[in-house]
Amino acid sequence: MKNDIILLGHGSGGKLSHQLLDELIIPILSQVEQTEQNDAAVIDGIVSNQIAFTTDSYVVDPVVFPGGNIGDLAINGTVNDLAMSGARPLAISVGLILEEGLGLDELREILQAMKLAADKAQVKIVTGDTKVVPRGKGDRIFINTSGIGVFDHELRPVGSAARPGDKVLINGRIGDHGMAVLASREGLDLQTDVATDSAPLNAMVAKLLERHGSAIHVLRDPTRGGVATTLKEIALQSGVDICLEEERLPVSDAVAGACAILGLDPLFVANEGKLLTIVDGQVADEVLATMRRCEFGEKSALIGEITENSAGRVMMRTAIGGLRSIEMLAGEQLPRIC
Amino acid sequence: MKNDIILLGHGSGGKLSHQLLDELIIPILSQVEQTEQNDAAVIDGIVSNQIAFTTDSYVVDPVVFPGGNIGDLAINGTVNDLAMSGARPLAISVGLILEEGLGLDELREILQAMKLAADKAQVKIVTGDTKVVPRGKGDRIFINTSGIGVFDHELRPVGSAARPGDKVLINGRIGDHGMAVLASREGLDLQTDVATDSAPLNAMVAKLLERHGSAIHVLRDPTRGGVATTLKEIALQSGVDICLEEERLPVSDAVAGACAILGLDPLFVANEGKLLTIVDGQVADEVLATMRRCEFGEKSALIGEITENSAGRVMMRTAIGGLRSIEMLAGEQLPRIC
Repeated sequence: MKNDIILLGHGSGGKLSHQLLDELIIPILSQVEQTEQNDAAVIDGIVSNQIAFTTDSYVVDPVVFPGGNIGDLAINGTVNDLAMSGARPLAISVGLILEEGLGLDELREILQAMKLAADKAQVKIVTGDTKVVPRGKGDRIFINTSGIGVFDHELRPVGSAARPGDKVLINGRIGDHGMAVLASREGLDLQTDVATDSAPLNAMVAKLLERHGSAIHVLRDPTRGGVATTLKEIALQSGVDICLEEERLPVSDAVAGACAILGLDPLFVANEGKLLTIVDGQVADEVLATMRRCEFGEKSALIGEITENSAGRVMMRTAIGGLRSIEMLAGEQLPRIC
Repeated sequence: MKNDIILLGHGSGGKLSHQLLDELIIPILSQVEQTEQNDAAVIDGIVSNQIAFTTDSYVVDPVVFPGGNIGDLAINGTVNDLAMSGARPLAISVGLILEEGLGLDELREILQAMKLAADKAQVKIVTGDTKVVPRGKGDRIFINTSGIGVFDHELRPVGSAARPGDKVLINGRIGDHGMAVLASREGLDLQTDVATDSAPLNAMVAKLLERHGSAIHVLRDPTRGGVATTLKEIALQSGVDICLEEERLPVSDAVAGACAILGLDPLFVANEGKLLTIVDGQVADEVLATMRRCEFGEKSALIGEITENSAGRVMMRTAIGGLRSIEMLAGEQLPRIC
């Protein structure tokens, strides 16, 4: 690789494309032999007659931020989307859209983060595609990750399965990812370390389903739009009201402080290593105990419940005893957060 | 949808995102009910313990060109990648990266083309994602389509399976897609209609495998980099030499003329509705007859053979009897062609 930046020719499909693929991308991501490179990957070990399938594109700005970069973010995000459906993440595709002029060192760092994240989540990167756009027609790097998961059981948690009496749990503090990216983008000095919470949640989900089975009604990761938007989606899908307790919401002092200064509400700030689960109220304490024993779950909390009403509302009982209605994010509170 | 253009807020994950999804994207692409929208799609009907998985991002410029647009191109491209592996395309994901300011009418037209193409190819669009980037950080629309295919048989054509004595077939004229996009982008008047050849080839592949089984050694679609680059890849993967006959290469007069004027070689120009197949020499004529009876195969031709040499070379016997070596595209002959 003589040139140290991405050229338009790297997207031609010809010699430069092959060089980029053979000398940088494939050695890091997949180690698939050249003789095995075909238009589609063939994946073995499909054990169920159903599979989970998901896709996400990542356009986060900046591409590197405290605690991670767009690469591990893209892997964890797709791993988590598969996990939330109850599936075991199996294989991931990587579609890169590179802007002419991107440094190869920066690309290498991002690819290495992807590989590390995939290894940690025990998924394989099996197929990919690379395109190049001219300077000013992209923004350094966009990544699409699509993923396939298999089901090891009959459990299918869905957003429409919340029932009155259920409890709402979350696996830790909210708003860290969004605030880390925003602070990094705007050059804000938060006087304290706020890093992304980006993490793979598939091991925790597997443990929850194994231990608590059909008591796990809903699993959803509150990414773009935050906890508020995700709960509002679930309330509408299930046709139930959800009531949150403000005092129980885990928020770090740093994120709470930064949100106060910036006029943001942590309920709407993106997370990338959090899951919301809505579970049978009878076993909520046991589920909470399981979550707290898992990696990425030490600070899990019970934050609310499904009430007897069925208007698709999300309400929050505030610290001073009032009740306020939570709606979806109306504008672009935080664009390009993932 | 009061506004007639894409706003940054359409990518926030909040109210505007849901409106775009519920009022425009989902009604056109998938009709999945809101209560059924989860982080991953669950796909039924997985009948084999292997599946095919592929991904491609589309960044073509311009996004609308003679004979198609980026939408049907993205569907056909992924359908074809699955088909080339011997799989039956089953489900497709759609990842949209929209530039702030894109007209909703233009987006609607592209989505409608995607849906039509998916219906024609008999695949379902089952999951998706939409991101928005600020003006000047993208280029109207980029689309990632990833796809899953199932195998109805034990046949797995791969690039490493070409053998001496095999014949090389193609299902029609080359270079139309690349030339249509280039002419459209540069405002060239080719004095004649050159349109993209973008088309789904899965029905043809199914017929070929059903009729000729294991005599079909290699299937590959010569997209970016053209026929030359794809054959060079196969020659290297199989460790064989391929010899083409220039006089047998089907090229329309319009494409040949335009290439001559522009100094391009149609062998390197992208196709989006062509397949190369390398088949047992004993049955090549029968395979050719099958191809010619298929839709998109009327002008199929036998264009070359695998020789007894094994140096990974591609040679072309020219019209005047010479032999020239064909290498991969070296630079960016035609950037952003798909």
